[in-house]
Amino acid sequence: MAVQKPSIPKGTRDFNPTEMARRNYIFDTIKKHFKRYGFSAIETPAMENLSTLLGKYGEEGDKLLFKILNSGDFLSNVSDPYLAEKNSQKLTSQISEKGLRYDLTVPFARFVVQHRNELVFPFKRYQIQPVWRADRPQKGRYREFYQCDADMIGSDSLLNEVELVQMIDDVFSELNISVIIKLNNRKILSGIAEFVGEADKIVDITVAIDKLDKIGLEGVNREMLEKGISAEAIEKLQPIILLQGSNSYKLVQLKTILETSTTGLQGLDEMNTILRYLEHLKVNNEVELDLTLARGLNYYTGTIFEVKAAQVQIGSITGGGRYDNLTGIFGMPDVSGVGISFGADRIYDVLHETNAFPSTTNDDVTVLLVNFGGDEELYCLGLLRELRNAGINSELYPENAKMKKQMKYADDKKIPFVIVAGDEEMKNGHIAVKNMTTGEQKTMSMQEFIQSFTQ
Amino acid sequence: MAVQKPSIPKGTRDFNPTEMARRNYIFDTIKKHFKRYGFSAIETPAMENLSTLLGKYGEEGDKLLFKILNSGDFLSNVSDPYLAEKNSQKLTSQISEKGLRYDLTVPFARFVVQHRNELVFPFKRYQIQPVWRADRPQKGRYREFYQCDADMIGSDSLLNEVELVQMIDDVFSELNISVIIKLNNRKILSGIAEFVGEADKIVDITVAIDKLDKIGLEGVNREMLEKGISAEAIEKLQPIILLQGSNSYKLVQLKTILETSTTGLQGLDEMNTILRYLEHLKVNNEVELDLTLARGLNYYTGTIFEVKAAQVQIGSITGGGRYDNLTGIFGMPDVSGVGISFGADRIYDVLHETNAFPSTTNDDVTVLLVNFGGDEELYCLGLLRELRNAGINSELYPENAKMKKQMKYADDKKIPFVIVAGDEEMKNGHIAVKNMTTGEQKTMSMQEFIQSFTQ
Repeated sequence: MAVQKPSIPKGTRDFNPTEMARRNYIFDTIKKHFKRYGFSAIETPAMENLSTLLGKYGEEGDKLLFKILNSGDFLSNVSDPYLAEKNSQKLTSQISEKGLRYDLTVPFARFVVQHRNELVFPFKRYQIQPVWRADRPQKGRYREFYQCDADMIGSDSLLNEVELVQMIDDVFSELNISVIIKLNNRKILSGIAEFVGEADKIVDITVAIDKLDKIGLEGVNREMLEKGISAEAIEKLQPIILLQGSNSYKLVQLKTILETSTTGLQGLDEMNTILRYLEHLKVNNEVELDLTLARGLNYYTGTIFEVKAAQVQIGSITGGGRYDNLTGIFGMPDVSGVGISFGADRIYDVLHETNAFPSTTNDDVTVLLVNFGGDEELYCLGLLRELRNAGINSELYPENAKMKKQMKYADDKKIPFVIVAGDEEMKNGHIAVKNMTTGEQKTMSMQEFIQSFTQ
Repeated sequence: MAVQKPSIPKGTRDFNPTEMARRNYIFDTIKKHFKRYGFSAIETPAMENLSTLLGKYGEEGDKLLFKILNSGDFLSNVSDPYLAEKNSQKLTSQISEKGLRYDLTVPFARFVVQHRNELVFPFKRYQIQPVWRADRPQKGRYREFYQCDADMIGSDSLLNEVELVQMIDDVFSELNISVIIKLNNRKILSGIAEFVGEADKIVDITVAIDKLDKIGLEGVNREMLEKGISAEAIEKLQPIILLQGSNSYKLVQLKTILETSTTGLQGLDEMNTILRYLEHLKVNNEVELDLTLARGLNYYTGTIFEVKAAQVQIGSITGGGRYDNLTGIFGMPDVSGVGISFGADRIYDVLHETNAFPSTTNDDVTVLLVNFGGDEELYCLGLLRELRNAGINSELYPENAKMKKQMKYADDKKIPFVIVAGDEEMKNGHIAVKNMTTGEQKTMSMQEFIQSFTQ
């Protein structure tokens, strides 16, 4: 077989042991808090029926789904006209019935409806799995990446939003990332659209305003004009877009702005309630009411969350919101839920940039035993067993190689302790321990060495 | 949008929280021992280039790969003749360039060669990820399933085989599954084929013999005859296939059988060495030299492993072996490696059948606080914070629902403790704790309650 130069598809990544230790540090921290807050894990298949995925992510979404070719003779049932036309789009549904999941929210909604009789409601699940999108790969944008989601479904209580803010605060406090937790509410946005007289253009308005950070106020206004929003409406929106001040101040202003909008006042009431709860609880990071926050997805019907790193210029690192009818698509209407998704890759980038990864992790091998071959090797196999029984990750160099080579191996793998148990040590029943970090060498019994770990 | 009855593709599964806890029990146990033995984690993408995957799994393998349809206008570059012929097989390579990984071993080999300059050799990696095969789904056979692999590459020392046997022994001892760890050697099988005068038919012989458990001796002999193996050779094979007795006895018999085969004697020497090491070490489970063991894959060149559950009728639950030239395909020849793969789904089935899953796991929510609304709710939010800070997984019911409903929630979710902190408890600074398992109710301070956990 001809030699193939090894490579992987664009937008995908391999993770070596160091990267894995860092990624797991992030996942384990998030998972710990998911569990702490009473969420339980589920997993769904990588492959969903295309019918589950199509039409859920907007116009562009369908194009970004990875589709799986049917097995066997996939052309046997296709229409000849489509083939003759070379119509890729029409042919797809005839040669493909499955696709890779694009996010964890639609699979979650499908799961809840499919298993509704087995679940306890309100149902609180977390899910940490990869998702796939055929995006154009760029910095921070991959074709395969993990999402870390926590959703609660079956309760419209705002206490759930409060819990999620606290959970976000706990996760980022533990990761040592200073954040701004931004809140908005879809009903407030509806109220604003009503107030400026363009109630039916809420999507165009919010999509434009959401880009404020990226394209500036002039860019936002230009886009709204292009979408047919009246000049008067745009004028009325300016002070709202530019509204500064404390959350309390903004709430007071909004009371006036939204006073004729039932929906708007409802959203304001929800926001008031959430912020009042949070005042009673200790939150380390800043919580900000941001009226320009909309986020791309259409299914949010209430509170909208977004988290930004306070000290690093990067897109949002966590997002989410309340949705009143996600499961309706699958036949279970009127079940309210709210959830958030941690962007593990962005969090990785922030920790990398702020040099905030811990220097060691539990994954590391702690001890290397030197291999002298023969009887000493057998003796060391016994010592190895003692170390492992004591819970210490250890290995014995697999061959009787030169000492220099074995020490280099320990050094390259950053193994902190090398144990020498040769002829002499065997006789004494002692071991010679070299601390690879300090360079210090000490003779002791294996028992002493093990005890120094369990203290 | 019309209502779609939710379902998932055949051969795939959802996992609810109870199933997740059980699966994680298996993965966490295996992972703990992987790390204990000095293996480090890596991950590779779900999607590999088709060129990496094709031709690596035998004739049938290519058909069982899931292929990913190219994005965009995938028909634009196809040959019209293929379209006209409706030739699915020829068209595949024109409309698909990526596939889902079929196992973890080929991606591992590709990874090693691609990253050879970053790795420390001998390289010991573990990998726990799902793989995908378009098999016909049946009991115990899924289209998406996890593999738990540990491989060491860059050393031909037999100590590595010994380590793997010990690791298998440790894992199944901890899982409380009694197993038989079967060993064989590809060189011994070569030697046997030479001995019976059919050296070039080793594959046909071993494929047939490997089916002994499934089709019996008559079936095995019939198959060998069909494959053109001479009657004399089949006659000479009978006593070898039926060889019983201790490992030492078998080794003695093999010495005679293989005496004119260099390769055979080499294999025998390797087996002798491994078994002698194991005699010096404490192994809980049975280790058996099984001359009928071959396993399907062609890349094994030395030791072959297979693990069977001693008390449950099920296929193999772990397998693996030594391979001298896996990375050669990708341009790095002559690097020897050895590895094993734990079949998590089969292990799940064994634990299920023997009722050996532990009754509780760490994932469970430990405390539910009852929600009375108003001031009591706010007070309970404070208690919740105390519980979580102490590391106790807790939740507050999200609404002021009837007590009966809240208790049912705790019961359905198997939450072991329900805490009531209403008007009276607030005044006293106490909490009323109900133990849901015993039914016992007790009043105490939060501090007392927390201490009872950390003891």
